[in-house]
Amino acid sequence: MESTSLINSKQASTSMYSLEDLQALVHKKVEGFCRKNSDESILQPVNYILQLGGKRVRPLLTLLAAEAFGDDIEDAVYPAIAMEIFHNFTLMHDDIMDNAPIRRGQPTVHERWNRDVAILSGDAMLIQAYQLIIKTRKECLSQVLETFNTTALEVCKGQQLDMEFQNRNDVTIEEYIEMIRLKTSVLLGGSMKIGAIIGNASEEDQVYIYNFAIDLGISFQLWDDYLDTFGDSAKVGKLTGGDILANKKTFLMIKAMELCSDEQRENTKALLAGPNSSESKVATVTKLFKEFQLDQLLKTTVENYYQQALENLNALGIDESRKQKIRSLATALHGREF
Amino acid sequence: MESTSLINSKQASTSMYSLEDLQALVHKKVEGFCRKNSDESILQPVNYILQLGGKRVRPLLTLLAAEAFGDDIEDAVYPAIAMEIFHNFTLMHDDIMDNAPIRRGQPTVHERWNRDVAILSGDAMLIQAYQLIIKTRKECLSQVLETFNTTALEVCKGQQLDMEFQNRNDVTIEEYIEMIRLKTSVLLGGSMKIGAIIGNASEEDQVYIYNFAIDLGISFQLWDDYLDTFGDSAKVGKLTGGDILANKKTFLMIKAMELCSDEQRENTKALLAGPNSSESKVATVTKLFKEFQLDQLLKTTVENYYQQALENLNALGIDESRKQKIRSLATALHGREF
Repeated sequence: MESTSLINSKQASTSMYSLEDLQALVHKKVEGFCRKNSDESILQPVNYILQLGGKRVRPLLTLLAAEAFGDDIEDAVYPAIAMEIFHNFTLMHDDIMDNAPIRRGQPTVHERWNRDVAILSGDAMLIQAYQLIIKTRKECLSQVLETFNTTALEVCKGQQLDMEFQNRNDVTIEEYIEMIRLKTSVLLGGSMKIGAIIGNASEEDQVYIYNFAIDLGISFQLWDDYLDTFGDSAKVGKLTGGDILANKKTFLMIKAMELCSDEQRENTKALLAGPNSSESKVATVTKLFKEFQLDQLLKTTVENYYQQALENLNALGIDESRKQKIRSLATALHGREF
Repeated sequence: MESTSLINSKQASTSMYSLEDLQALVHKKVEGFCRKNSDESILQPVNYILQLGGKRVRPLLTLLAAEAFGDDIEDAVYPAIAMEIFHNFTLMHDDIMDNAPIRRGQPTVHERWNRDVAILSGDAMLIQAYQLIIKTRKECLSQVLETFNTTALEVCKGQQLDMEFQNRNDVTIEEYIEMIRLKTSVLLGGSMKIGAIIGNASEEDQVYIYNFAIDLGISFQLWDDYLDTFGDSAKVGKLTGGDILANKKTFLMIKAMELCSDEQRENTKALLAGPNSSESKVATVTKLFKEFQLDQLLKTTVENYYQQALENLNALGIDESRKQKIRSLATALHGREF
């Protein structure tokens, strides 16, 4: 194994790492992981999907939590990378299930190779996540693994719910939020909790930091729904209305179908299935959303989850100075316009 | 969690459990695992595939090894069940890749539900295997997990090789045996090694028991090849020649293609692709195998691996009385005519 030594010129003191330092460390460690995989044919798709990039938010959350509670992040580095490997495993398998041809601008693994390769390399990738997660101190191994297992199983259940919802017309907002909690938020929560465990956080603080990430994640995902319909397309980098055209059951669509009259409901369905232009479909449905002030409702909901996240952050029993980088990240994620 | 207490009326003494006791215990624990899964929709296919049955050889091997080295098998029970869950996870995903419609006389998971369910429930099942494997003593957790991870990744590589071989015409006997070592034997080896670790076996004995299971597994798989062509179809329970008709690259076919003339090779390929009856195809190819005395060569190879297995068993630094049940199981597996 390569050395776990982080940034040689720096001491392992919490104040020494900026957010950018930690991000650079994560990128370097993911690259190092890929380099070691290089000549195994089953692992080529693993490297491929990892090298498509991504923000690496999950390992960053693990390191931020470990640093906030502990004095040394060394023991958290491999578990942090495990969270990224796990996340990319779910992408590889979800892309098969969603028949997605493109991931981050490149062909998905099942397109570039084939379905069987994507299944099997995904399996290998999940096992590799476990190979990394166990590289931590023995004293916290059980607790880290229990958190990881629970989280991983919940993420699968989230994907299961997402698939089930596609064939249902009676999904409620509560069910929708539960689905995004499982599919997205618990992995953010698990990433931070694992960092906190390694940093020797109290049980109470483990719960607070977990709930912080859960609420931040839900807020983040709901904001995605908002931007897809009401965002500035120049800033978002794609045309708005994608969810409407795909007839996706988002917060906005679920709530609109709940509130509208039977006639409006039938008209909307007919419009989306009909020959009208994309522009006219998007414009008409967006108008419907605005009639019910769903843009405002969604903004308020996003804000509520964000405030709940901050309350959990505030409640942590550590100095404010130790929360500062986590707070910065939350602010950056919350304020984004893309 | 349900209690780990095994068979209440018996003390945890090695001599108290017969092979049948251990088998009954494994069946009971697998059933208990399924009962706890019952109302989760993602876990229904998990229960389905487990309840199709099977010999449960892998958990039995874990318990036998734990018992041979230790005085108590309690700590090995959940890891033993983990090996069975893992094995069934590989079956669920392999069946997708092999487009197999039937497993143990019943529809495969992807047939009974669909492909996406089989992918996702398989993923959940792999995570559940980890939930069980970590339920052992903390002192041996790292070593058990390292063995499990290595084994699991090798099994995936075995499946990868098997798939690659389908598109190759130059597979050698050595490559074929390496494929079955990875696809089948390492899981038997890993099952026994994990039992040995939990039973506090010496490092030397961990290697011997692992190699015992590896050689026994290769011997077992090669004997499968033999029976498929030369077995007594009444005893085997199906017509012989299935591998020939499926044009499978078995030990016999690989060796025959190596030894025969170019003309024989072309004739065989033409025969298998042509309109002749199944009986005539099987009879002609079987005759070719016998011309090269491959029935004898394969029998000798099976016997050699079996003897190597026994040498590893003999080398274990424990009393012969502690090896007796493992020896009985080996004899039973070796002597089978079906």
